[in-house]
Amino acid sequence: MLLEEKCLKSERIYSGKILNLRRDIVELPNGQQASREVVEHSGAIGVVALEGDGRVYLVRQYRYPIGQITLEIPAGKLEEGEDPLDCARRELKEEAGIEAKRWEPLLTFYTTPGFSNEIMHLFLATELSPREAAPDQDEFLQIVALPLEEALEKVRKGEIADAKTILGLLVVRYKFTS
Amino acid sequence: MLLEEKCLKSERIYSGKILNLRRDIVELPNGQQASREVVEHSGAIGVVALEGDGRVYLVRQYRYPIGQITLEIPAGKLEEGEDPLDCARRELKEEAGIEAKRWEPLLTFYTTPGFSNEIMHLFLATELSPREAAPDQDEFLQIVALPLEEALEKVRKGEIADAKTILGLLVVRYKFTS
Repeated sequence: MLLEEKCLKSERIYSGKILNLRRDIVELPNGQQASREVVEHSGAIGVVALEGDGRVYLVRQYRYPIGQITLEIPAGKLEEGEDPLDCARRELKEEAGIEAKRWEPLLTFYTTPGFSNEIMHLFLATELSPREAAPDQDEFLQIVALPLEEALEKVRKGEIADAKTILGLLVVRYKFTS
Repeated sequence: MLLEEKCLKSERIYSGKILNLRRDIVELPNGQQASREVVEHSGAIGVVALEGDGRVYLVRQYRYPIGQITLEIPAGKLEEGEDPLDCARRELKEEAGIEAKRWEPLLTFYTTPGFSNEIMHLFLATELSPREAAPDQDEFLQIVALPLEEALEKVRKGEIADAKTILGLLVVRYKFTS
């Protein structure tokens, strides 16, 4: 069975700071046409930074789109052409003031393939340096360190509800890696 | 520490079929201003439909935003005001031709709180009726049933790379529920 859709026409609706939006007209496998809305995103990374004593570092920050303060693993957007691991090192240092000797890829996935091309690379960072408090002037966030089991309990209670964070915590907890 | 951001001005950029886009000007905790791009989404559901023999049903479909054929759990968008469980029943029937006697909530999370308000509700469906092949005329998809362990192996190999699907499979595999 043919499943592919072919782009017939592409209309750029918005070019922004963290995303672009376009609307394409596609040809369906049966020859009919349909429209597709696509949020273009440059990709992102997330880091499970795990201390020797089993604590993970989480970022407490306000997420404007959902109007809530969330707890998430340190994360950030890839710059144009940036290597995901370089980005992960940079973000962990910038957001959390932490460097790590050891880095392992955990999982790579699409966050929302129904409407966006965002790809997310998760890493495990261990053998951490002592944390230096050096948040960016523009970033309003707090760093907290929680035992992994306590973080998972917060997932159960709905107090941690960010997809990449839950994925990272589960993968580390159950040693589910590629 | 104050973390909240206050909306000063809101500009609607696009109103579409599956999403809207707006750009707001916000006041940061330090009084300065910044812009925020927000993809508005009505929310969605995903269903891990588990047979008594341990197989899960997956949908093989073309995802235009990433230009790939993916394997994902049955899923769909909430209609205005629709109850997530009603939506899950509807989508499982429509997409996969399956009804289930038993439904349990698995996990609720935000897919991309950095740029969207999309919330995703995952359910476990068991005690399934025999599957009727009745795909929507507009939906080009194939249903496959795989043993849970085989699906997880595909996650390890990167052949399943959809966030909600990986989350659903891991939560069921490790019986991690709220």
